[in-house]
Amino acid sequence: MTDPRYDFRSDNTGGVAAELLTALVEAAHGTAAPYGDDAWTARMVERCSDVFERKVKAFPVSSGTGANAVALSVLANGFGSIYCHESSHIEIHEAGAPEFYTGAKLVLLKGHDYKIAASALDSALQSAGIGERGRVLPFAVSVTQPTDYGTVYTLEELSAIAAVARRYGLRLHMDGARFANALAALGCSPADMTWRSGVDILSLGATKNGAINAEAVITFDDTLATELPYRMKRGGLVLSKARFVSAQIERYLADDLWLARARRANESARALAARLRAIGVGIDVPVHINMVFARLPEPAVVALERRGFLFYRVERDIRLVCRHDQDVASIDALVDAVRDAIAAG
Amino acid sequence: MTDPRYDFRSDNTGGVAAELLTALVEAAHGTAAPYGDDAWTARMVERCSDVFERKVKAFPVSSGTGANAVALSVLANGFGSIYCHESSHIEIHEAGAPEFYTGAKLVLLKGHDYKIAASALDSALQSAGIGERGRVLPFAVSVTQPTDYGTVYTLEELSAIAAVARRYGLRLHMDGARFANALAALGCSPADMTWRSGVDILSLGATKNGAINAEAVITFDDTLATELPYRMKRGGLVLSKARFVSAQIERYLADDLWLARARRANESARALAARLRAIGVGIDVPVHINMVFARLPEPAVVALERRGFLFYRVERDIRLVCRHDQDVASIDALVDAVRDAIAAG
Amino acid sequence: MTDPRYDFRSDNTGGVAAELLTALVEAAHGTAAPYGDDAWTARMVERCSDVFERKVKAFPVSSGTGANAVALSVLANGFGSIYCHESSHIEIHEAGAPEFYTGAKLVLLKGHDYKIAASALDSALQSAGIGERGRVLPFAVSVTQPTDYGTVYTLEELSAIAAVARRYGLRLHMDGARFANALAALGCSPADMTWRSGVDILSLGATKNGAINAEAVITFDDTLATELPYRMKRGGLVLSKARFVSAQIERYLADDLWLARARRANESARALAARLRAIGVGIDVPVHINMVFARLPEPAVVALERRGFLFYRVERDIRLVCRHDQDVASIDALVDAVRDAIAAG
Amino acid sequence: MTDPRYDFRSDNTGGVAAELLTALVEAAHGTAAPYGDDAWTARMVERCSDVFERKVKAFPVSSGTGANAVALSVLANGFGSIYCHESSHIEIHEAGAPEFYTGAKLVLLKGHDYKIAASALDSALQSAGIGERGRVLPFAVSVTQPTDYGTVYTLEELSAIAAVARRYGLRLHMDGARFANALAALGCSPADMTWRSGVDILSLGATKNGAINAEAVITFDDTLATELPYRMKRGGLVLSKARFVSAQIERYLADDLWLARARRANESARALAARLRAIGVGIDVPVHINMVFARLPEPAVVALERRGFLFYRVERDIRLVCRHDQDVASIDALVDAVRDAIAAG
Repeated sequence: MTDPRYDFRSDNTGGVAAELLTALVEAAHGTAAPYGDDAWTARMVERCSDVFERKVKAFPVSSGTGANAVALSVLANGFGSIYCHESSHIEIHEAGAPEFYTGAKLVLLKGHDYKIAASALDSALQSAGIGERGRVLPFAVSVTQPTDYGTVYTLEELSAIAAVARRYGLRLHMDGARFANALAALGCSPADMTWRSGVDILSLGATKNGAINAEAVITFDDTLATELPYRMKRGGLVLSKARFVSAQIERYLADDLWLARARRANESARALAARLRAIGVGIDVPVHINMVFARLPEPAVVALERRGFLFYRVERDIRLVCRHDQDVASIDALVDAVRDAIAAG
Repeated sequence: MTDPRYDFRSDNTGGVAAELLTALVEAAHGTAAPYGDDAWTARMVERCSDVFERKVKAFPVSSGTGANAVALSVLANGFGSIYCHESSHIEIHEAGAPEFYTGAKLVLLKGHDYKIAASALDSALQSAGIGERGRVLPFAVSVTQPTDYGTVYTLEELSAIAAVARRYGLRLHMDGARFANALAALGCSPADMTWRSGVDILSLGATKNGAINAEAVITFDDTLATELPYRMKRGGLVLSKARFVSAQIERYLADDLWLARARRANESARALAARLRAIGVGIDVPVHINMVFARLPEPAVVALERRGFLFYRVERDIRLVCRHDQDVASIDALVDAVRDAIAAG
Repeated sequence: MTDPRYDFRSDNTGGVAAELLTALVEAAHGTAAPYGDDAWTARMVERCSDVFERKVKAFPVSSGTGANAVALSVLANGFGSIYCHESSHIEIHEAGAPEFYTGAKLVLLKGHDYKIAASALDSALQSAGIGERGRVLPFAVSVTQPTDYGTVYTLEELSAIAAVARRYGLRLHMDGARFANALAALGCSPADMTWRSGVDILSLGATKNGAINAEAVITFDDTLATELPYRMKRGGLVLSKARFVSAQIERYLADDLWLARARRANESARALAARLRAIGVGIDVPVHINMVFARLPEPAVVALERRGFLFYRVERDIRLVCRHDQDVASIDALVDAVRDAIAAG
Repeated sequence: MTDPRYDFRSDNTGGVAAELLTALVEAAHGTAAPYGDDAWTARMVERCSDVFERKVKAFPVSSGTGANAVALSVLANGFGSIYCHESSHIEIHEAGAPEFYTGAKLVLLKGHDYKIAASALDSALQSAGIGERGRVLPFAVSVTQPTDYGTVYTLEELSAIAAVARRYGLRLHMDGARFANALAALGCSPADMTWRSGVDILSLGATKNGAINAEAVITFDDTLATELPYRMKRGGLVLSKARFVSAQIERYLADDLWLARARRANESARALAARLRAIGVGIDVPVHINMVFARLPEPAVVALERRGFLFYRVERDIRLVCRHDQDVASIDALVDAVRDAIAAG
């Protein structure tokens, strides 16, 4: 087994948050209606309504890709398009799931810090030939908050995107696989970062922040919820014993632990970045959450790998992700190893 | 919360088998590669190979519908067809998931005791106009073992179906959502009931027999496994922390507990059926596994419902399902209540 | 080349009606906007509105399968179902095109004379488990008028089906590949046989009655027309030089020639059937339009084939189709040959 | 009706080549098997084999979008990707038809003169993460020859692209909607421009060069032809009276008239460009075939529009397309009008 202290691959390699494991174990007793008709799911939906400060519908699923794909499927038709950043998870890491569920085309936007700019969206839509023969019809925008590169949209940026979207009649989806990390970074409320900023539907991830395959699709517009159960079922995303996901999500949102864990992961990354910078390592992407993209000389990277550190190479960088359960000592160990590796290089 | 002793709705309402919960909890420590590249999944695949007495590939998923749909997607093309019984789960209870994943048409066969007869398959294929313009091409047969009505194909029946399928160049899928119950009923080996009978790909369910959303797609022909990871990912079926499903499946198959639990559920149902028959209740479908389809006068059904018993009505019958964790006392209570209800009627 | 007098295969083997060829040739001069933005298409839509006695939208396409599939695609969603007769063209002869375009499941109904009965539709919908988990949602009914076996729904039958459909919130599609033949048989108006009977969308075929690959999708509810151009384009059904289809359809409906041709084909078939019956041949299906299903001893069938007669075998019958340009002498020749064949047998 | 002399909108607004109309009219006599089983289609396939100097399979269709989409559908799977230029017709003008038929993602490449460069394809494929989890699998490259901007790939460019494609196991599709124009421009043989350059499957268009909705899908690898009839049928692309397309394609390729017509259109455009340049008009794209992208001051554009000239605006340019039946006088008229418009401006 891997030594967790040497593991900076991703936040989905991590262990399980104690309170979520407890919630899951507690749900294991007694019988319950299957497929989400259970009391845990009902409580989860209530909890979501509380946390998001309005009545929402919420659906438990076990994969983030499934959550994104099915959420998009109620926004876009087969002859349509969905606008997203060219680096977004739905484009790069989901093997075409969004296209499979929607039939729509993903239109890729460039943008600084891996984020869509409202102005870029606007000019893309302006030249989309809406209504022209042969052009697909724009139906939705999807933002990844935070992005796969760990950058976070400000509330102003989100609102500006939503305003452009609304102007063209598009709906707004948020891929919140690391929702808590963005929330912790912005210090705003869940409502602020979603419907108050114009988000219509959210994929809320808990897995990367300590849960066991637990995500939720949350709609801020009830009309979007009507087809969701059918589309989820048709995708094989409805869980027989949904209560085991719902129990986790409910507990996840029940107090501030989710934010505390996200904050800790974010702070670990910021500390790591600061210390790496201090020893002369280039950090290529702003560190808003729990990810550090560090530029190291190739021999240093190889040296780290030989020492047993685990991480992914992303283009010219190495990506270092801090988990909710990251040990402080592991940061020390990594920084020391980087210093040695550079010195040796 | 429902009183489990009064709950005869389904085996997916049940609690979790202690050893599976333990396996899941044990997997919660340390870090592991995501998406099935972990040690638990590797051990699960080995365990499957052991249990099925040949090298197999096995893929953890969290829903039976997902397992079926993606398994079928490597057998059938969009211009093709899949033969199944008109009562099969893939036709009635999956909201079109098999069609979504395959693009193919389900061709429905009638057949005694909710089972396909080899001869019916043969004559359907004979009149399928294979190669004729405009006709879809038959690609696969899917058997539900046991069926959704609790009947079990004998090994001879399976082999006969497989022989017909092979003659026409079709592959054979088995929906084994209650695989253990069928195995316990037949008293044969997993190998006998699958590849030795001609099955090419299996959806192995553990959820209805005590697991938490844990199923596996198992291929007995490696060429079928090549596309599976891509098709799973595209369907949103790949789990970020796959180890929590794999750990359960591994443990599930590790000793005879899975069969013991299935046997117990089957025996509960057989006892229930015998005692109902003894008090004059008609049992409409042979009781091979853990389900009893009982014909009761309407007032008796209503009386049972009023007493708090939970079950589904299926056409003219009530369906009573015994779980792996069924309390013997609950059978007594139910039989007593039925007797009272009939007497009162 | 085949001798047309010996050709009873189908009405789509036939030649081209003189006036339609003229219309097509006349459209060949000058330039015109592509993709249906031309004057011929505008005139065709007007003509359809005239003929159907209300403002309609109409879209030229070149294949009946394309017309059916795209018409259904605006009625049914991917998690839905479409009810049709088990013998219908959309089920048997379109290689899954309706499923490809809609994603929906075709639910097959049995019914006398190859027609759906309103009562059968009603009881199928009653047991469709509408709203139940896992069941597909019924969205539409499709009637083939006339059926592929040449039987014709009466106006009462159509209205009864439409009433049931409406009661369950379903829309009604009519596959009118041989629309003119049914119209000639019923002697009613196009409006009576469509929207006045509750039809929402029609695939109107002209190809089998003398046109060159010319069909139209006609909507009697404008909201159904909004998505059609996009869905047609996405299916590759929009024609670059649409005017060559539109010009034919416009001319086709411009006077009573389309009905005259259909009437002639129908009468040829009725005469053929009467004369065959007179010499003792069993006619298995009521002859409403231009098709005769005749039961002949196998040696007689082989003898006819040897003599050069062309026809298809359909189950135990031979199918004899009379074309719009059927030569009366060819009926004589066929009847003589049958008489000889039987005598020789 | 539009004055053809003022119509520079596109080559699909044009009239019909006399010999093709004759071929179509001649096919209108007698009966023939439907769906492509006729003698005309057989002769068309032979003609294609002749012209392409090897045995090919060829399938008549009536739309270029349909031809492209179905051709791609035998190259790429739903979890795959197809590489093309960001300006390609399949991306911009087909409303998602390629995605609908294949399920695959179009990956857009930039490239000078609207053409893919082999090197750009190579580096895109290098960073495609082939085999990585979550990435779609590259299956095919599609080149538009000539491009939608009228530029033509040289044989060397095509071969270089094919070599890269082959290195990664990708197949090569050519969208030849204006195939004859490219052929005329290069002065090479059809074989040189296709299979000898590594093309596996071709959409051959005749509509823009004088035919009535007549295109062919041609395979240079028989294994690609197996599924085509099924996939065409499922898309509603199989024509009931296919002979009317086949007869045109056969005649189209029968002598050098197709090249003569393309040459004439190309020469008209080159003359137009030269004369516009001579009066100071900027031509923004190399004029390889029958299209001129001219940069005019806005008042001049408006003046031309007021004079009744028809053309499309494409970004900052106006696009002027010369047809196979372009009148020389119309070039004079246009150049004069431009000169006046500029002077007036």
